[in-house]
Amino acid sequence: MKALLLLGCPEVPVQTGLALYIGNTLKAQGFEVICAGTPSAVNLMRVADPKKVYIESYMNIDKCIDQMAEGTFDVDLTFGFIHKDSGLQYLATIAALSRSTPVAVVFGREAEPLGKEVGESLDGVHVIWAKAVHNPLPLKKKLDKIGEWATLVRDQG
Amino acid sequence: MKALLLLGCPEVPVQTGLALYIGNTLKAQGFEVICAGTPSAVNLMRVADPKKVYIESYMNIDKCIDQMAEGTFDVDLTFGFIHKDSGLQYLATIAALSRSTPVAVVFGREAEPLGKEVGESLDGVHVIWAKAVHNPLPLKKKLDKIGEWATLVRDQG
Repeated sequence: MKALLLLGCPEVPVQTGLALYIGNTLKAQGFEVICAGTPSAVNLMRVADPKKVYIESYMNIDKCIDQMAEGTFDVDLTFGFIHKDSGLQYLATIAALSRSTPVAVVFGREAEPLGKEVGESLDGVHVIWAKAVHNPLPLKKKLDKIGEWATLVRDQG
Repeated sequence: MKALLLLGCPEVPVQTGLALYIGNTLKAQGFEVICAGTPSAVNLMRVADPKKVYIESYMNIDKCIDQMAEGTFDVDLTFGFIHKDSGLQYLATIAALSRSTPVAVVFGREAEPLGKEVGESLDGVHVIWAKAVHNPLPLKKKLDKIGEWATLVRDQG
C-alpha cells in the first residue's frame, strides 16, 4: 500500500515536522510513503531528514498531478497538508484524479473555518484540524488517531 | 565533545529542519548533541524526529541557562539559531556563562542586519547567515562548511 503526503509552501512552521511524524507512523505500518510538494516544501523535508529515515521518496507536486492525470501513478491514501486555499486546491485536484482515500490535515491560524470548507468541498474526505502554528502537539494527538485508522485501511486493502 | 543547539520560538519555518540537519552533521562527527529550546521549539523538534535519530537529548532553554550559571552543565560548541533579537539574547547569555565557542546561525527576512548585529555584539562568535525563510538551501551550504570547521574544533579539543 502506498501513502502520499501532499505539501504546499511551508509558511507555517509545524508543516515539516508533522509530515515527518506521519511519515514515520505510516512507514512503521508498512506503507510506502511518497512526499509530493512544492520545491521549497521538498527542500525543507530533505534538509530536516538528511538520512531519509522518515521519508524515502520525493516528487514535485506538479509532476505528481501530471502522472496521476496520465494514469501512470496512483496511491492508496493521500494526506493533504492544508493551511491555506492552495493546499485545498492541491488535495481537491488529487482527489479528482486518484482512487485514493483523501485525508486533510488542516493547521495554521485559520484551521477551523478552513477545515469546515475542506469537509464541505471534498466528498468522502477525512478531516483533522487544530489551530497549530508553532506548537505541533494538538495536531500530533489527532494524527496518532488517524494513524490507527490507516492501519484499518491497510488491513482492508 | 558536546555541542549545544539553542532554539528560540519557531516562527520561521526553516529553523527545525536546519537544526535537525546540523544535529546530524555533528553527531556523525562524534559530538554529543543537546538541543535546548523554548517549549514550542522542543516540541516541534521531537515531533519532527520521533525516533530521535538526529537529536537524542533535549532540555528547556531556561533550565540550560540555570545549570550553566550554577556551573553544573557546559558544552564545547554552542549553535544559536537566530531570527530575531530574542535569539541573539539567548546566545549572548550562554556565551557569557559557558566556555564553549559560540556559532550564530542567522536566518529569516532580517538575516543580513541581524547577522551584522550578532557579529558586533559577541566576541569571538562565528556568524553564518542567509535570508532563508522557507527555502533552507542557501543556509544548508554554509552549515556544511561550519560542519567542516567543527571537525577542526573536535580534533584540537
